[in-house]
Amino acid sequence: MKTIAALATPPGVSGIAVIRVSGPEVFSAIDKIFQGKQKPSEMKSHTIHYGDIIDIYNNNIIVDKAIISIFKAPNSFTGDDVIEISCHGGKITPSLILDLLYKMGISPAEPGEFTKMAFLNGKMDLVQAEAVADLIHSISVNSSQTAARQLNGNFSKSISDLRQQLIKICSLLEIDLDFINDDVEFSDYDRMNALINDTILFCENLINQYKADNILRSGFHIAIIGYPNSGKSSLFNALLNKNRAIVSNIPGTTRDYIEDYIYVNNIPVKLIDTAGLRDTIDIIELDGIKLAENMVSQADLILLINDLTLGENHSNKLFEYISNKFKEIPIVILQNKIDIATTNDNNDLEQYTDNNIYISAKKSIGLHDISNIIVKYYNLSINPSQNILVNERHKALLINVIEELSLAKNALKTHSNELAAINIRNAANYFGEISGESFNNDVLNSIFSKFCIGK
Amino acid sequence: MKTIAALATPPGVSGIAVIRVSGPEVFSAIDKIFQGKQKPSEMKSHTIHYGDIIDIYNNNIIVDKAIISIFKAPNSFTGDDVIEISCHGGKITPSLILDLLYKMGISPAEPGEFTKMAFLNGKMDLVQAEAVADLIHSISVNSSQTAARQLNGNFSKSISDLRQQLIKICSLLEIDLDFINDDVEFSDYDRMNALINDTILFCENLINQYKADNILRSGFHIAIIGYPNSGKSSLFNALLNKNRAIVSNIPGTTRDYIEDYIYVNNIPVKLIDTAGLRDTIDIIELDGIKLAENMVSQADLILLINDLTLGENHSNKLFEYISNKFKEIPIVILQNKIDIATTNDNNDLEQYTDNNIYISAKKSIGLHDISNIIVKYYNLSINPSQNILVNERHKALLINVIEELSLAKNALKTHSNELAAINIRNAANYFGEISGESFNNDVLNSIFSKFCIGK
Repeated sequence: MKTIAALATPPGVSGIAVIRVSGPEVFSAIDKIFQGKQKPSEMKSHTIHYGDIIDIYNNNIIVDKAIISIFKAPNSFTGDDVIEISCHGGKITPSLILDLLYKMGISPAEPGEFTKMAFLNGKMDLVQAEAVADLIHSISVNSSQTAARQLNGNFSKSISDLRQQLIKICSLLEIDLDFINDDVEFSDYDRMNALINDTILFCENLINQYKADNILRSGFHIAIIGYPNSGKSSLFNALLNKNRAIVSNIPGTTRDYIEDYIYVNNIPVKLIDTAGLRDTIDIIELDGIKLAENMVSQADLILLINDLTLGENHSNKLFEYISNKFKEIPIVILQNKIDIATTNDNNDLEQYTDNNIYISAKKSIGLHDISNIIVKYYNLSINPSQNILVNERHKALLINVIEELSLAKNALKTHSNELAAINIRNAANYFGEISGESFNNDVLNSIFSKFCIGK
Repeated sequence: MKTIAALATPPGVSGIAVIRVSGPEVFSAIDKIFQGKQKPSEMKSHTIHYGDIIDIYNNNIIVDKAIISIFKAPNSFTGDDVIEISCHGGKITPSLILDLLYKMGISPAEPGEFTKMAFLNGKMDLVQAEAVADLIHSISVNSSQTAARQLNGNFSKSISDLRQQLIKICSLLEIDLDFINDDVEFSDYDRMNALINDTILFCENLINQYKADNILRSGFHIAIIGYPNSGKSSLFNALLNKNRAIVSNIPGTTRDYIEDYIYVNNIPVKLIDTAGLRDTIDIIELDGIKLAENMVSQADLILLINDLTLGENHSNKLFEYISNKFKEIPIVILQNKIDIATTNDNNDLEQYTDNNIYISAKKSIGLHDISNIIVKYYNLSINPSQNILVNERHKALLINVIEELSLAKNALKTHSNELAAINIRNAANYFGEISGESFNNDVLNSIFSKFCIGK
């Protein structure tokens, strides 16, 4: 097993930088470069010591005065011997110390390698490891809190319990195989069916949670759409409060889409300013439209901006088109240019939606109403009290579980116990992949490669 | 005395973030929000503990699972009770924990406030405190090593010794004042004079070191100058290896100066691409030239680029102008466009300098020779074996010391012991300001406000 080291804090000018070192060679290495009152290998676990880091390859000059934290196996993050070197921050000092470690034969840690070691040493399961990454990458208080709960391992416990029950059913069915011609009790089948149905329901609930969890994880996506010159980019800028998109009055200025994050009442919102959706033979423009529709389909809320100076109903066709095309996405109509509009015709749009807000993107009128609408739809979309952030990987495995259990149900109906046992065992294996009770290296690599270095 | 807290690591996505808390209320605060096997206030100094950080203002939900490091006064960085919370990195978790601390009445730390507390508690002198900042902001191995040596406090020791000797002389002179009509021994005057001369020499050496230390601290400044279209921006880009400056063949494209850092053989080099130095009535262009001359005067090396296609002597006038104007800055002439030049006239420029390098900025020919020249002049400019980085503040105080001691020498010549004593005491005070043995709050604030937050 190799010994690994990496900077565990972000690069940059700061008071402190922390270098994490883990593996069997930790103490023999640190003993050479640390000069304090005691030898690191003789220090007690969970103690902190002040001393000099010296460059043994360059006349023992002092590289830094640092603090080392001792974690002896198995009572460490990774489960192996770990030392954290808390040195002065900045560009140079941390890299000088890392260079020293690498020169002594310690390997640079790969992304997520410390957490991978923790998983392989049984310090945490896969769902907890993923919670670590979710916590680090979290962009909102809600997602951070959910990830912190997921760290506790309750989700893995539920998965593991269900998995054990499925395995027990398998055993029962496999025992029955030996008495292939004896009828098993109907009550057993009922109990099996009930458990399978409960498990399917459990999976379905989690899958339904995925969209909400995705909003927690990556923010609330809002697409701003409207005819050319309706004021999309002005609104985008008003919301961003900085000049990120180019604003002009030439139709089709925004040829592509632009996106940026803002926080609305602490809610992370990803704004997507789409290209003008109108018929045209301009190819770039058309590409823009195609791209825009793709972006709109991923939105959690659509802000349709209408140029009020052309009438309140000017965008009716667009509204119809969009609401037919994206039936599940709520649409709010923003009647823009209220500062210069004089029209007062019948507001047919109101019949389409309760959300018909009068604004001026240019004069920043009505922005507060938009914020309220965003908060309202965000709160409808998420479920902040969950104990887990269901991710793409979980979702795919949960779908597999449902598929296998549905097949098992059919097999049981025809008393094909052997087939049912195979399907149920497959389902149990998929559960095992979620928690990491069963895994293969490719899955591990794909999970941990998304981590940052030093974690 | 207030209790302060701040993020001590850079903001950003990372495995670990460290929050430092220092002051009398540390333990009473952490006791409330940390749940582990033990109460933080009952933990031993220099130990590490794992537990949950809970939000006491929001149903005690877990904010993070974290490690806390205990440092009890006076054995901490600041000299007060200190706890470092090592939590998961990222945008949210560290700020949630800081918010918790602030809600409990702990103050956000100002830039450098932890180090200022360390100074006020006698844990380090001002020169060591400045070394902390130098270490964190250091951009090269040489400056990092010098700052690490300065941390040891040897410089302050020399300053303090000299200061004590000056104070002793003052006492002698002041005693003599009481016997105003008795002649003091000539030998005493000789000894005083010798000490004063030694001290002036000590100061002069340090002041001479300032320029070299400034190169260590802020990099080796290189100005690239030349007539329009000689290839300055191409060279700049070739050295930068990225498209930072706009390259075109319209004279005067670079209207202002552009600067960027590169590392040449681990030497931090600040490249300055100056505006075209030619006579013109274009005002922006003229401004550019004025600015350029100002920039050139701060350079440690000038690279004068000549368009070889117009002849090797084409830039002679510019060379003469520059070498007269900036007599102390070495100049290297780069004969550019060797790939397309066909001229073969007498190279009069060679008589001006040994450094006449043939290059093609566009084809990246001769870049290695430029690197060698940079390394040569850098090594001539710095003194990497010093134990201190003399900064602007030290330099100003050292000049004051010399002035006062020169006045004292004159006073002693005329046996104006009273005056001499005043001057020597002033000199001693200036020494005291360097190490911080004497200080005022304005000086402290100006020093520590340049620190980063969390240090």
